[in-house]
Amino acid sequence: MPLAKSFAGDNHSGVHPTIMRALEKANTGHVAAYGDDPHTRAAEARFRDIFGDRAGVFFVFLGTAANVLALKALVRPHQAVICARSAHINVDECGAPEGVVGCKLLTAPGRDGKLAVSDVEPFLADINFVHHNRPKAISITQATEFGTLYSVEEIREMADFAHANGLHLHMDGARLANAAAAMNVSPAAMTVDAGVDVLSFGGTKNGLMYGEAVVFFRPELAEEFDYIRKQGMQLASKMRFISAQFEALLADDLWLENANAANASARRLAAAVGDLPGVSVTRPVETNAVFATVPPEVVAPLRRRYFFYVWDRARTEIRLMTSFDTTEEDIASFADAFRDALESI
Amino acid sequence: MPLAKSFAGDNHSGVHPTIMRALEKANTGHVAAYGDDPHTRAAEARFRDIFGDRAGVFFVFLGTAANVLALKALVRPHQAVICARSAHINVDECGAPEGVVGCKLLTAPGRDGKLAVSDVEPFLADINFVHHNRPKAISITQATEFGTLYSVEEIREMADFAHANGLHLHMDGARLANAAAAMNVSPAAMTVDAGVDVLSFGGTKNGLMYGEAVVFFRPELAEEFDYIRKQGMQLASKMRFISAQFEALLADDLWLENANAANASARRLAAAVGDLPGVSVTRPVETNAVFATVPPEVVAPLRRRYFFYVWDRARTEIRLMTSFDTTEEDIASFADAFRDALESI
Amino acid sequence: MPLAKSFAGDNHSGVHPTIMRALEKANTGHVAAYGDDPHTRAAEARFRDIFGDRAGVFFVFLGTAANVLALKALVRPHQAVICARSAHINVDECGAPEGVVGCKLLTAPGRDGKLAVSDVEPFLADINFVHHNRPKAISITQATEFGTLYSVEEIREMADFAHANGLHLHMDGARLANAAAAMNVSPAAMTVDAGVDVLSFGGTKNGLMYGEAVVFFRPELAEEFDYIRKQGMQLASKMRFISAQFEALLADDLWLENANAANASARRLAAAVGDLPGVSVTRPVETNAVFATVPPEVVAPLRRRYFFYVWDRARTEIRLMTSFDTTEEDIASFADAFRDALESI
Amino acid sequence: MPLAKSFAGDNHSGVHPTIMRALEKANTGHVAAYGDDPHTRAAEARFRDIFGDRAGVFFVFLGTAANVLALKALVRPHQAVICARSAHINVDECGAPEGVVGCKLLTAPGRDGKLAVSDVEPFLADINFVHHNRPKAISITQATEFGTLYSVEEIREMADFAHANGLHLHMDGARLANAAAAMNVSPAAMTVDAGVDVLSFGGTKNGLMYGEAVVFFRPELAEEFDYIRKQGMQLASKMRFISAQFEALLADDLWLENANAANASARRLAAAVGDLPGVSVTRPVETNAVFATVPPEVVAPLRRRYFFYVWDRARTEIRLMTSFDTTEEDIASFADAFRDALESI
Repeated sequence: MPLAKSFAGDNHSGVHPTIMRALEKANTGHVAAYGDDPHTRAAEARFRDIFGDRAGVFFVFLGTAANVLALKALVRPHQAVICARSAHINVDECGAPEGVVGCKLLTAPGRDGKLAVSDVEPFLADINFVHHNRPKAISITQATEFGTLYSVEEIREMADFAHANGLHLHMDGARLANAAAAMNVSPAAMTVDAGVDVLSFGGTKNGLMYGEAVVFFRPELAEEFDYIRKQGMQLASKMRFISAQFEALLADDLWLENANAANASARRLAAAVGDLPGVSVTRPVETNAVFATVPPEVVAPLRRRYFFYVWDRARTEIRLMTSFDTTEEDIASFADAFRDALESI
Repeated sequence: MPLAKSFAGDNHSGVHPTIMRALEKANTGHVAAYGDDPHTRAAEARFRDIFGDRAGVFFVFLGTAANVLALKALVRPHQAVICARSAHINVDECGAPEGVVGCKLLTAPGRDGKLAVSDVEPFLADINFVHHNRPKAISITQATEFGTLYSVEEIREMADFAHANGLHLHMDGARLANAAAAMNVSPAAMTVDAGVDVLSFGGTKNGLMYGEAVVFFRPELAEEFDYIRKQGMQLASKMRFISAQFEALLADDLWLENANAANASARRLAAAVGDLPGVSVTRPVETNAVFATVPPEVVAPLRRRYFFYVWDRARTEIRLMTSFDTTEEDIASFADAFRDALESI
Repeated sequence: MPLAKSFAGDNHSGVHPTIMRALEKANTGHVAAYGDDPHTRAAEARFRDIFGDRAGVFFVFLGTAANVLALKALVRPHQAVICARSAHINVDECGAPEGVVGCKLLTAPGRDGKLAVSDVEPFLADINFVHHNRPKAISITQATEFGTLYSVEEIREMADFAHANGLHLHMDGARLANAAAAMNVSPAAMTVDAGVDVLSFGGTKNGLMYGEAVVFFRPELAEEFDYIRKQGMQLASKMRFISAQFEALLADDLWLENANAANASARRLAAAVGDLPGVSVTRPVETNAVFATVPPEVVAPLRRRYFFYVWDRARTEIRLMTSFDTTEEDIASFADAFRDALESI
Repeated sequence: MPLAKSFAGDNHSGVHPTIMRALEKANTGHVAAYGDDPHTRAAEARFRDIFGDRAGVFFVFLGTAANVLALKALVRPHQAVICARSAHINVDECGAPEGVVGCKLLTAPGRDGKLAVSDVEPFLADINFVHHNRPKAISITQATEFGTLYSVEEIREMADFAHANGLHLHMDGARLANAAAAMNVSPAAMTVDAGVDVLSFGGTKNGLMYGEAVVFFRPELAEEFDYIRKQGMQLASKMRFISAQFEALLADDLWLENANAANASARRLAAAVGDLPGVSVTRPVETNAVFATVPPEVVAPLRRRYFFYVWDRARTEIRLMTSFDTTEEDIASFADAFRDALESI
């Protein structure tokens, strides 16, 4: 029996076949190490096609590093980053921002993973008070950790607010593709054009084997970032293999196709399980995540067949993620298993 | 015209075909992220076959991270690591030990990349002097950055000295395979059996696309290392793809075959260029590196066809590295180019 | 006209005359630097008289350092410290725990500055989840930043909970003297005897010129702390002058006398202003702090004569602190000024 | 019998009587904490009288902090500071630069504690090589750790070289007063006027109880340094007591008087012991340090009466320091003890 598809995370999936072929094609002979190679130049050019000529592109191995090193470029240890309490940088990076940057994260509860300007504003009341870390950046996630979306207007408002107060705006775009697909808005429109200063652009959750990009939209912020990346233990020697993946991902809109597939699966999944008895979808299903409260007793039996995370133990809110390769059949099987588990309790 | 093979570094090469096939084979459906998958379990088992049942194995993306996070497990910021001045951790990691661990490196000149106990001993004279970082680990490289080798006896002597003084012994084994091949000694014999406490085991320089392993030989040193790796931004979500590479590398002695090939090429290369006029091989050619002083004027013309590093500008000592895929023809072409360059000056 | 006494902080006061005399007396000729002197030995002995023979005592310059370096001895960067959101380490140290230790603070709202075991417990649900910093210490403040007190029983309960879960208990005792005085309980009873592992013992807020002590109650936690202090830039060369102050503070119960005086002044102050129109004391007045909501319009006119902090802008809650040298007259004058300001609005 | 004066360090002495009186005078009633007080304003004004109106002055508790936080303002973790191997920041701060700044120190041997431009130049050959920390500051010590001096011309040359290469020049002036006294050159002439960017100005070794100053000569480098100081655990709450000491030190040229006294004592000491049998003064005696090789057997008996440091065990080179309060009698007694010890071997 083949293994069931997982709904635990969009990194439980493997590598998209097109990406795998790109890796094979890149494996020809010797090229210079550390990024001085044709694949890296080509991938960077693709990024600039999307985000404009001033974009500075730096590949790293994984999303935590993209976020944390981007922030390291923006803030110094005595400064602070403002983010939602639910932000990946706050919750799921084992304190890498604190450990690697040395700064403090100032968190606000937000709503469904989103911060409003009014959430951020109170942190600036004491911006000149030397006993507090000085806020220097805001970090928002698009799509958020709850799968929800900032509108372009909301992003622009946050960027304007940030800049008016001398702060930078970072966007954790581990799932930017899902956002762009869902909103039918170009990646540039919701980032550089809306005032974002630095973007973590995700690859691994959208069909790559490994590889993320830090994209700077203001060249002065990228100064010496190559050193920050190296000291941050993220300079790949055989860089061409990250680059070749991004080349393929950004060609022929594969990134968009993958994201659309995952998003559509989430909608399907929400429909399939949202009406089950005792189940209640708790967050807007806008990209590839479905959050739902479920009867507590269903967790154990369902987990015997499918691993997934319980996000909020107190109310048994679970998280289900879909991937580029989730099929209708996968969803039907999962819904069946869910029904079985419900009946067994 | 196909690109010439590079002699600039053993990470200019690509991926060994067997490794590439292993990546393809591992790309089937969904598996749990972050290492809770069959490939990772299998790769860990292979490491334990080689290094014994107590070996704790942790995969990371790259060699700098393997070294630095291993050291982070061993020393605290107020402590020190003793190493050769030429050590990769001291010279080529952009200060990651200082930046990530926060400790000080105490360096001794050594000889051809090797440290003797007598080099280390003076640092312990003040081990209780609170104004100096307290030495807590020694790091040696096998094979060294100059391609030279520690004998098993030398390693054991260093380990005994370390342990007698309350220090740990780390080995940077980015090229351990080359050492084992050259010495015809098992990896275990020159590490765990000789008293090494923690090993960085290299993959990328021996035919992998990416991936290194930190191998702990004393379980108590590995406690909470999974957190150190996560905060250190080295926990791969799609871990199976690192693991599958190591599975293949350690199966059927591919690691040894690759290392033998690279080592043999270096001997051939030394023979081919060592007798050229004005060229003098400067270090014992024991693994896959050839260091030689050359006429300064030859550098520019030769570099137009081959990139390589000038290791010591003062005396124009260059470094040439061979890879698992360097061919006799590659060497002959390079020697021809070298001769041409010499004649042109 | 002499300057009015301040109610802004207990470090706006100067040095108690007895302490100043001790400084003068210590200023005779040469003694060894860095703590190898008779004053330091004598001061350490006094601490051991109070806290028991196993107490390890280390002097530092200031309270932030006492807290942060104590925590640095207890936790590593990938671990976490649990504390109240209002804790000084979280709010008023400009991110020194994050910057110097590299760890994360996990905060709970608490009540009036106090944490209960039930506040801490939820953080341990995921103690083995590698994506979160691993909780390793709890830090409580006695007296709290709101001037409130933990009972000995509450401290013991927290310590038992900490130890049962493999955590250490740190106490920020910048105002431990005020707590001991208010509760009529010995410093040992509320620390070492109740299970506290490490204490920051305050001096500056209780009449010293400068100087705090980190007191370890379990010797194994103090191992190499002298290096942590040195690297932490807190090893005083002319240590005798911190030590001599503590000698004098701990002799003849000066610490208790000063604390009693400050506490009594706070009670008097609360009585004097608590019934003014529009003023409402918001926290139990248990030591030397008075928190009260006041009419917003009174802040500006009152601040023209007295500086004080507005703790919570939203509801205009101000903080008033008394010192060892606050007099009845000072309080009467302040109350008069307050009444004037109220009438002027 | 009164304790003998120590020649082990210029921080074994106590507090100059004028400084002690200034501390007493400053101890009147309440003033605002954290430096918003008249003493701090007055002391800052004195610094600006000496160093010019643009000088930004920040007091800290101790010399290690002055150096390390100054460097933290100048360099980021991926950058490097170039200094002499014998520099206090490299040798005697327990790795605080590495631990607190996270950067690397690049060291050159130098001569008698001094660096020449030619020592620094080689580190810039690879300034754009991302695998090495990028040099961003040079730190020199005046007077050096060996008591030797940079001429104004040498400092200017180093500053010009630094600036021409985009580097900052930091001066560790823990004994700047001794240098100014010895050279009969104003502090400004050898710092701001010669191109120094940031100065650590020493107090403790010149008669203060505690207290050093970081003085920025380019305002843009001091931006947000108040936060760096706070997070660096060096913001004194009762700041007035550091400030009052500097007020007194800088008034009526007390700093110069103290330094002249110490320097004169060193010359006397060198004369008294330099001709003893088997003793050879090894470094120019230019300020308040005397280095000499001595017969190894004399160390133990002499140390029974006087503590001092053996700087270089291999050749039994000892260091003797004089203080502002060293008397002719102290030197005569020490010379007698030395002769006794020599005779006893």
